[in-house]
Amino acid sequence: MLSSNIFSKCGRWTTFFSIAFSPISNLTSSSKMPTLQDPLSLDSIPRSSDLGRLQRNTSKVTKMDLGTCLTETRGCSRSNTSKNNLTSNVGTLCGQDHNNYVLVEAVPQFSHILKGMPRFVKIVEVGPRDGLQNEKLIIPTPVKVELIQKLVSSGLSVIEATSFVSPKWVPQLADARDVMQSIPLIPGVKFPVLTPNLKGFEAAIASGAKEVAVFASASESFSVSNINCSIEESLERYHKVVSAAKDLAIPVRGYVSCVVGCPVEGPVPPKKVAHVAKRLYDIGCYEISLGDTIGVGTPGTVSPMLDAVMSVIPVDKLAVHFHDTYGQSLANIFAALQMGISVIDCSVAGLGGCPYAKGASGNVATEDVVYMLNGLGVTTNVDLGKLMVAGDFISKHLGRQSGSKVAIALSRVTAGASKM
Amino acid sequence: MLSSNIFSKCGRWTTFFSIAFSPISNLTSSSKMPTLQDPLSLDSIPRSSDLGRLQRNTSKVTKMDLGTCLTETRGCSRSNTSKNNLTSNVGTLCGQDHNNYVLVEAVPQFSHILKGMPRFVKIVEVGPRDGLQNEKLIIPTPVKVELIQKLVSSGLSVIEATSFVSPKWVPQLADARDVMQSIPLIPGVKFPVLTPNLKGFEAAIASGAKEVAVFASASESFSVSNINCSIEESLERYHKVVSAAKDLAIPVRGYVSCVVGCPVEGPVPPKKVAHVAKRLYDIGCYEISLGDTIGVGTPGTVSPMLDAVMSVIPVDKLAVHFHDTYGQSLANIFAALQMGISVIDCSVAGLGGCPYAKGASGNVATEDVVYMLNGLGVTTNVDLGKLMVAGDFISKHLGRQSGSKVAIALSRVTAGASKM
Repeated sequence: MLSSNIFSKCGRWTTFFSIAFSPISNLTSSSKMPTLQDPLSLDSIPRSSDLGRLQRNTSKVTKMDLGTCLTETRGCSRSNTSKNNLTSNVGTLCGQDHNNYVLVEAVPQFSHILKGMPRFVKIVEVGPRDGLQNEKLIIPTPVKVELIQKLVSSGLSVIEATSFVSPKWVPQLADARDVMQSIPLIPGVKFPVLTPNLKGFEAAIASGAKEVAVFASASESFSVSNINCSIEESLERYHKVVSAAKDLAIPVRGYVSCVVGCPVEGPVPPKKVAHVAKRLYDIGCYEISLGDTIGVGTPGTVSPMLDAVMSVIPVDKLAVHFHDTYGQSLANIFAALQMGISVIDCSVAGLGGCPYAKGASGNVATEDVVYMLNGLGVTTNVDLGKLMVAGDFISKHLGRQSGSKVAIALSRVTAGASKM
Repeated sequence: MLSSNIFSKCGRWTTFFSIAFSPISNLTSSSKMPTLQDPLSLDSIPRSSDLGRLQRNTSKVTKMDLGTCLTETRGCSRSNTSKNNLTSNVGTLCGQDHNNYVLVEAVPQFSHILKGMPRFVKIVEVGPRDGLQNEKLIIPTPVKVELIQKLVSSGLSVIEATSFVSPKWVPQLADARDVMQSIPLIPGVKFPVLTPNLKGFEAAIASGAKEVAVFASASESFSVSNINCSIEESLERYHKVVSAAKDLAIPVRGYVSCVVGCPVEGPVPPKKVAHVAKRLYDIGCYEISLGDTIGVGTPGTVSPMLDAVMSVIPVDKLAVHFHDTYGQSLANIFAALQMGISVIDCSVAGLGGCPYAKGASGNVATEDVVYMLNGLGVTTNVDLGKLMVAGDFISKHLGRQSGSKVAIALSRVTAGASKM
């Protein structure tokens, strides 16, 4: 079993990775050491004010023990974006030899393509629901509960726990009530559940749910095939759910599926997505998650779709939800970040279809998203090592390798290190 | 065996995918039908001038049979980028119902994040060299030659064929001479080979090579461990190779490895990368390929590195080369495209380490890159279907599933269709 503290026991690999992968959260104090599992981030570029120290010290740890430039720079910003405040005097290094770095000159500014990035991204973990509902194997309730507990331990603040749909349609989540009743209330952590209609909503509330989600399609054909009603009929159902939820002060999240393509109709026009998203927003959903359900999108199609939706809904009320069927999710997420999106749905271990079997189509892996965000200097409050423990736990129960490339790569590193 | 013309025999899936995935190259004439394997592209957004036709016609084929707006718009540009010429009058659609789309209003411009994209990207296929040299299985020469022929058939114009390094170090490519002597001269197609020194260069030329490549590291430690000499010593060697090549009018490509991180030293400063890249450029390499050898980069580290290199070398002389160890390659490539990079190295089927075994670390899969580029409306002249045939061919010989998610997803679609 993978242990989160294995990262501090890895011989020379610790040396490398503790340098190479330094998340912003781990570098707010020079006394804190970065951990194995974090990507090389903007923090590795030292501040100009650190030059003297840098020139005096040549050890690797000292070289990397500098970097809170981005945190500090961003600290001046009042918003969650960094449009123009990343052009500060950030120095960079040139090695004369590998043990004796000296500063040659300062890079005038961060790359223009990183401007506008949110400073903080909220990860919505959907593995226990959207992930497990698409796995062939039905996971026992105690395992689901333990998975959720491990996800909480990693720092995730929103974990979609289950779905109150008919067990006929989703037998994988037939234990929704038991799962909800087994999860303790944890301050600061939300466990939304999917509710397709008023009946599902009532069952969810009776089971202790404090937040729910509804799901409409941007494609008529998919709406009919998936939930057996037209888009308009589904919105009428959700209006009733939201009204009932409002009476109980229960927040409702809204999903839009097929925001790029539909398995029946083909391409879905951005304006259609905007229309459905706006309807959900208008009936009272506090956040709209835009899902590329069949994973066909690229930044070329995702960005016009986001433009259309952002023209009718404030960007801070939007989330993106990518399935990695065509491997495009991280590129799409990077594009979405550039457009100001700061809420990302993903599944630990890429749950949602065995990713290495024929016909793979899981959600984008949370580990891979967090790794990229760490590398971008975007705060998530998620501990990647602990997240990997959760991913390892559920992958073992599913009897397969993780769908996260980060998890696979770092497992190899730790396995290699343990032999030294 | 996967056949490229399977894409025209797939019942209802053909209908969907022929609509959804329309590459720019397939839509230059309204009489041409797009093919199964192409991603939903910007072309699916019709021109304003097509509104009348659009409102009169409701069939899916007609709706998608519009789309050369981006090609036409870009046709006005004199450069290989589209900085400000993507703000034209591109319409978008809103469905009243799924069989009766009408235009509601025009989107004022393409998303700003797509500005500056190159119009054309040159793919440098490195599978037969960088891919196969990292596979455990040694592939017989005739299979390598057939793979190269299939890659040529897909439209690739640069295929790195092999490496003239010591068979002691790379037994997988011990047949370099035989491979080179078996590849016919094909007008318009280049087959560069790797040459570590003058001896390797002379062997390559004797075997018929018309282009070579040299490789330096941006990390001193990696240089020593990989090629057993310092960076400076390696550059001296390459200077001799380039001088000899110049006498024979042989172009030389230069690789820089470890451009983000090094397995020994950790993070590699962008200025160090720029320094080594500039040295290779100055000694006469016509193109510099920047390689994230251990795949640790994210757009947060790749973009400052590119900024540094672009400050000393013209962007049109640069290529990027990502290993997908941490799954970040497509995001990094998208970032590089945004910065104006128009040459991308990749390996068919993600060759270079079994991607689904523990410790995966292959190159980014060519299929996945071409899919994204098609979706971005960027021309490559590569036929994705034929590329998949090549990937399927070599994957079967390696006895494993392709490392391309696009190949896996589209294989599923065609397999499903064949049962209908």
